[in-house]
Amino acid sequence: AGDAAAGQQKSATCVACHGAEGKSTVPLYPNLAGQNAPYLVQALKDYKQGGRSGGQAEVMKAFVAGLTDEDMDDLAAYYHSLKP
Amino acid sequence: AGDAAAGQQKSATCVACHGAEGKSTVPLYPNLAGQNAPYLVQALKDYKQGGRSGGQAEVMKAFVAGLTDEDMDDLAAYYHSLKP
Repeated sequence: AGDAAAGQQKSATCVACHGAEGKSTVPLYPNLAGQNAPYLVQALKDYKQGGRSGGQAEVMKAFVAGLTDEDMDDLAAYYHSLKP
Repeated sequence: AGDAAAGQQKSATCVACHGAEGKSTVPLYPNLAGQNAPYLVQALKDYKQGGRSGGQAEVMKAFVAGLTDEDMDDLAAYYHSLKP
């Protein structure tokens, strides 16, 4: 499982859209706080590999391009840990 | 905006995966409780029109095939209204 504290360190680039507490700044973007970690990991992997389209997929693809599997696990654990 | 009460009536087919209170039964599926309504409407439209892939897109496409725009607004309002 991921490391939420490490995930927080890695979440700086996510804050602009998903909010500082995982509640998105724009209602067209999803809240992430309390979301299921396996779902988030799958979404990040799909975005990175181009297996997820729709919504802001192209923007997300750029943001996740440099993430390792461990980064994804940590980010998912972090957002799951936030109070929705 | 959608009608949450009408959305609840229309959510019977969603419960199996997304849970009775919008908290999914399987962590690979997203929780919907408290999610942003515009994001949910966009996701439902993308699934219906085949504009969203990844995860359970094929399953979702079948579930949303019969939904009208009004149904989507109502379902989104309903899930947004649930306490995360």
